[in-house]
Amino acid sequence: MKKIDELINKIVQTKNPVCIGLDTMHEYLPEELINGNNSAEYAANAMLDFNIALIDTLADIIPCVKVQVAYYEMYGVYGMIAFQKTLEYAKKRGLLTIADVKRNDIGDTARAYAKAYIEGIDICNDTYFGFNADFITVNAYLGIDGILPFIKACEKTGAGIFVLVKTSNKSSGEFQDLQIGNEKLYEIVGQHVLSWGENLIGEHGYSSVGAVVGATYPGQAKDLRDKLKSVFFLIPGYGAQGASARDIVVNFDQNGLGGIINSSRGILLAYRQEKYSGMKFYEAAKAATLDMQKDILSEFENCGIKI
Amino acid sequence: MKKIDELINKIVQTKNPVCIGLDTMHEYLPEELINGNNSAEYAANAMLDFNIALIDTLADIIPCVKVQVAYYEMYGVYGMIAFQKTLEYAKKRGLLTIADVKRNDIGDTARAYAKAYIEGIDICNDTYFGFNADFITVNAYLGIDGILPFIKACEKTGAGIFVLVKTSNKSSGEFQDLQIGNEKLYEIVGQHVLSWGENLIGEHGYSSVGAVVGATYPGQAKDLRDKLKSVFFLIPGYGAQGASARDIVVNFDQNGLGGIINSSRGILLAYRQEKYSGMKFYEAAKAATLDMQKDILSEFENCGIKI
Repeated sequence: MKKIDELINKIVQTKNPVCIGLDTMHEYLPEELINGNNSAEYAANAMLDFNIALIDTLADIIPCVKVQVAYYEMYGVYGMIAFQKTLEYAKKRGLLTIADVKRNDIGDTARAYAKAYIEGIDICNDTYFGFNADFITVNAYLGIDGILPFIKACEKTGAGIFVLVKTSNKSSGEFQDLQIGNEKLYEIVGQHVLSWGENLIGEHGYSSVGAVVGATYPGQAKDLRDKLKSVFFLIPGYGAQGASARDIVVNFDQNGLGGIINSSRGILLAYRQEKYSGMKFYEAAKAATLDMQKDILSEFENCGIKI
Repeated sequence: MKKIDELINKIVQTKNPVCIGLDTMHEYLPEELINGNNSAEYAANAMLDFNIALIDTLADIIPCVKVQVAYYEMYGVYGMIAFQKTLEYAKKRGLLTIADVKRNDIGDTARAYAKAYIEGIDICNDTYFGFNADFITVNAYLGIDGILPFIKACEKTGAGIFVLVKTSNKSSGEFQDLQIGNEKLYEIVGQHVLSWGENLIGEHGYSSVGAVVGATYPGQAKDLRDKLKSVFFLIPGYGAQGASARDIVVNFDQNGLGGIINSSRGILLAYRQEKYSGMKFYEAAKAATLDMQKDILSEFENCGIKI
């Protein structure tokens, strides 16, 4: 089964189109996980402990986690061990996984990235995964050469990719909104994403080639949703980055499908909010996740959408 | 001293504007390094042995190595150890290092990447580097938010970045050559690179904010060279990708400065060429590097350029 279908099935099952972003900075950890020792190895281990506690608490109420590699790379090889084990543990607990790595390169190199994350390599008559994810994020600046190896890996293994189309940050328009004829650059990238995925459409009508579409630009997101019918969206920008449930609802179809909303800091740091005070970090994360779900489903209801 | 100045000084000292790309695939290794065992750990160790032998042989005749992380990520954490140790060993042998990672993300995450590769983090009253490079490659699709943290790290530490402007691959024009008013997208990105680096210009007139400009598009490269006077180019595409010394010469100023030409497969796999048969892989790599240098300096001479 395609991972995009597994993801959608899990969204329906949990009634929760929400992905928790394990952008685990060491500074986010509560006192009890730090203990004074902050060598790179210890810090990375503590980050992994934090992630495991969150995954254990959230595994039954969310479909998916997204792991942002940058925060692990700061701790070098120790961080990469924590990154790899986080992906592995999430998968073991039945969660779908997105490695947020935004890879991009020429064909041969893109092929190596695809093997590293979603396809694996053949070693000793077995398939070895450097880092084993169900989905990865990629950047299309190099054109189809740099994307095709990922698409081929998706065909072969059922995995999926999310291509950067319109990002959530303030300066995303600097290049993405440049006008090319009657369209903006991100719209053209979006059209390519649509066509790249047309042979990989799953049973729910969405393809393995998805798009990153920031929640902070609801007008553009609505337009992309209308035009890219078979493209599933990974939607950053809710919460700490400023987008509300009302901003986000435009990304979904009438069945509440078509996208998954990522939240990172709002969940990871919930335990520092007054609202959740007195709770353990993982309890606060769970409460904040349920509040986020409620917020979104309530907005869905306002718009006549039902998962 | 800015790393861009160190790099240029080393180019002048070696009279060699050439960077060897350690895109070390396990399949590239000679029999004597493989020995039948190809577990991920063993493969990654063998890749490191290969790199160390190359660095030892080339350290006196080249200014710089570029290490492409994709080929290491295939071997997971073991590969990342080899990647980290390759950077470390190259630095120890006096070479400048480029981590070819093409990172890109929103501001907070870009800051984490900058810390991971060129700035380091504070741990136990010391600066710890996840992966310690002098330069990294980055992708500007997210605009200035995603670039500024790298520029700040360059200001602070003297490190440098190379921003993807016009890549060497066949489909590089798919988005990069889109027409925006009177300019193409890559030209606009190039103009931004020029302005991003204007406060970081070193003693040779080139800034810490460089550009990746593929050798396979000499017309566009010449035009970029004319317009982006203070931008230093990292130039892939020589050799295996098809560009000749004649294609490349347009990237340089009259002093033979302004760029560094990368070659990977042509050097790493020289030992499999008939021309270098009977040589050890590192001897063949050295012979091929000297041949490449000769080829380029000879074309420089034809054009009245002298390093």
